[in-house]
Amino acid sequence: MPQGTLLYAQSGGVTAVINATAAAVIETARARKVKVLAARNGILGALREELIDTSKESAAAIRALGHTPGGAFGSCRLKLKSLEADRARYERLLAVLQAHDVRWFLYNGGNDSADTALKVSRLAAEFGYPLTCVGVPKTVDNDLAVTDCCPGFGSAAKYTAVSVREAALDVAAMAETSTKVFVYEAMGRHAGWLAAAAGLAGDGPDAAPHLILFPERPFDEADFFAKVKATVERVGYCVVVASEGIQTADGRFVADAGGGKDSFGHTQLGGVASHLAGRVKDALGYKVHWTLPDYLQRSARHLASKTDVDQARAVGKAAVELALKGRNAVMPAIVRTSQAPYRWKIEPVALDKVANHEKKMPAGFVRKDGYGITAAARRYLEPLIRGEAPPPYGRDGLPKYVTLKNVAVKPKLPPYQD
Amino acid sequence: MPQGTLLYAQSGGVTAVINATAAAVIETARARKVKVLAARNGILGALREELIDTSKESAAAIRALGHTPGGAFGSCRLKLKSLEADRARYERLLAVLQAHDVRWFLYNGGNDSADTALKVSRLAAEFGYPLTCVGVPKTVDNDLAVTDCCPGFGSAAKYTAVSVREAALDVAAMAETSTKVFVYEAMGRHAGWLAAAAGLAGDGPDAAPHLILFPERPFDEADFFAKVKATVERVGYCVVVASEGIQTADGRFVADAGGGKDSFGHTQLGGVASHLAGRVKDALGYKVHWTLPDYLQRSARHLASKTDVDQARAVGKAAVELALKGRNAVMPAIVRTSQAPYRWKIEPVALDKVANHEKKMPAGFVRKDGYGITAAARRYLEPLIRGEAPPPYGRDGLPKYVTLKNVAVKPKLPPYQD
Repeated sequence: MPQGTLLYAQSGGVTAVINATAAAVIETARARKVKVLAARNGILGALREELIDTSKESAAAIRALGHTPGGAFGSCRLKLKSLEADRARYERLLAVLQAHDVRWFLYNGGNDSADTALKVSRLAAEFGYPLTCVGVPKTVDNDLAVTDCCPGFGSAAKYTAVSVREAALDVAAMAETSTKVFVYEAMGRHAGWLAAAAGLAGDGPDAAPHLILFPERPFDEADFFAKVKATVERVGYCVVVASEGIQTADGRFVADAGGGKDSFGHTQLGGVASHLAGRVKDALGYKVHWTLPDYLQRSARHLASKTDVDQARAVGKAAVELALKGRNAVMPAIVRTSQAPYRWKIEPVALDKVANHEKKMPAGFVRKDGYGITAAARRYLEPLIRGEAPPPYGRDGLPKYVTLKNVAVKPKLPPYQD
Repeated sequence: MPQGTLLYAQSGGVTAVINATAAAVIETARARKVKVLAARNGILGALREELIDTSKESAAAIRALGHTPGGAFGSCRLKLKSLEADRARYERLLAVLQAHDVRWFLYNGGNDSADTALKVSRLAAEFGYPLTCVGVPKTVDNDLAVTDCCPGFGSAAKYTAVSVREAALDVAAMAETSTKVFVYEAMGRHAGWLAAAAGLAGDGPDAAPHLILFPERPFDEADFFAKVKATVERVGYCVVVASEGIQTADGRFVADAGGGKDSFGHTQLGGVASHLAGRVKDALGYKVHWTLPDYLQRSARHLASKTDVDQARAVGKAAVELALKGRNAVMPAIVRTSQAPYRWKIEPVALDKVANHEKKMPAGFVRKDGYGITAAARRYLEPLIRGEAPPPYGRDGLPKYVTLKNVAVKPKLPPYQD
């Protein structure tokens, strides 16, 4: 039985399946008789010494955690700076880890978290403290380097494709006398991965979504209007999917054009869909509807992709195994070993290959005209939304999600002063 | 074998289950060897003599129709006026019905459609044309009179409750360092039925949604801000569900305050959630996220309520049976015969009891403080979202929705001049 404690923490925007990773971490560690603490609200809880004793949760609760969206221990958006600039914080972190005999630190997040895990491991080495740090991938943005895809993305992608397919059927029915244009806003400030996933909703020139707007391509309003008009005239209606991060050729975010202050000086929260809908209405006179799913798209565990759930669990399990083997400063990555049939495996990659890198969507994934996805994108995306993994439902018609007890561990250090 | 043709048409905003009603209509009629035509785009297709021959669709296609959202034959937002004001249109309608030997007319919609069906039946009687008109209930707004609930509402209600429960878990995880307030905008311009359904997502003072804003209660911004602040301070975050139709005490729609023109003279499409989010940010300084699900909430067949699907089918079947029995100017209504266990049956009600009436939400469904639902509301709502009825999924991870062939019947009359 390995000596010491494993600390697990969740970071950044949560997903429909990050708790599936957490469940796999806890179950794998339990099977090896390793004690697991979880930091409350990510790295912040580690700094504040707000630690949760997961041994107080029943096996049934941890099983249920596997199908519960959100981040059960809390997450945070705190980004530590460089070792030099944030040294006091890194040293406090190390002090907390030492105080609780933490020998394995698993940080479940995106680029920033990989960077934090890497820096903690370097500091531990500098102090001669035996610590194994493992990054665990997670992000709906799908922008982590090296790994073929990121747990969380597949379920958000499935939500996007299904929602666009369903809404398009609604618009098609209404178009003759009512709504002719529908705009769906997808998450993705820097890369159009989720907008691209909407392309799975249909194939062929007349199938919705008819136009996808990617942050990878400059937004040309006049050209967009022409495309919308041509689509409405040809198909009868037009379904548009816009990535929140689209920019004009001079690098301004289109979303920002829709915001600002109203005539009372009140903040107008914009967004791309709202802005585009207003512009299309003004320019083309069509009745327009639009949606901003926001958090719904990343928390919709009821519509999770089975592939995604399986991968989320697999990285959790692998992270514990790598940690217990002493594989320091690595991240379990997903490797696509076969396209047809789709097969994947988990392999460790060095954290410094992941930290602070950002995976862009390949240029070959966007159609030449800039408004749709290519066959290559379809081949990449489709397996990621494959399979259903619905949560159990109660008699009341609602998914049975768990709320953990989250019992706090008694602090051993003086309170954290930030 | 009954002589003549049955005409079916879909009207108003479509739902996740109106096609389940259509499938039941066609299957019930087929079993009785009755020919079914469908009007393209509702009553408009009947006026234009754009009729679809449903006998060209396979049994498998009609079965798949039963789990496909949207309106497969197209809907419309055309409201006919009184018999006197719109007499030419009513007479054209009757001429088309006669030309195709239509003896049974089923109109699937809300209040306006019930009214139209009633007027067509009166005109037919006046002309001595033997026609049986049956209204078939449908609306996510749940505002039809007499019937205990409306097909379409239960699935939208389930979507609302599940989405709010899921998003709330996301917000809870983010709240410590990021989003503290989340605003969900529910459909319902005149009645807060869908906003009320969000209340099923949680129970108890600290469970999300923490605040529900109903059109039935005047919106008091200062009081709302105080409630948001108190909730964030007590719970750590606050999930708000706002009905699109909320109004201030002087009767102005809050949604309109968020719209208008921006400084460039461009249309700003507002909405309640966007407006409230901006105001909360300005007044309280919290980071706010918001969602406008729009059509997603009424087309989410992937999350349909089984109760709702069963009822949508039942009204379709009953409508055909009533029509073939010559029960003119009626609508099959849903009657709740038992609360625990929940039981219901279908009974015909006279269309003039339904047409142009609007069912308000009972005052006793809104909590005394105006920000939540009562136990009575829970008892009414909960059975309506009960049960799951997922569509079949393909190997590609997407629901298998059908697109009908919609083969047009050759017109027999001169083109329609409106």
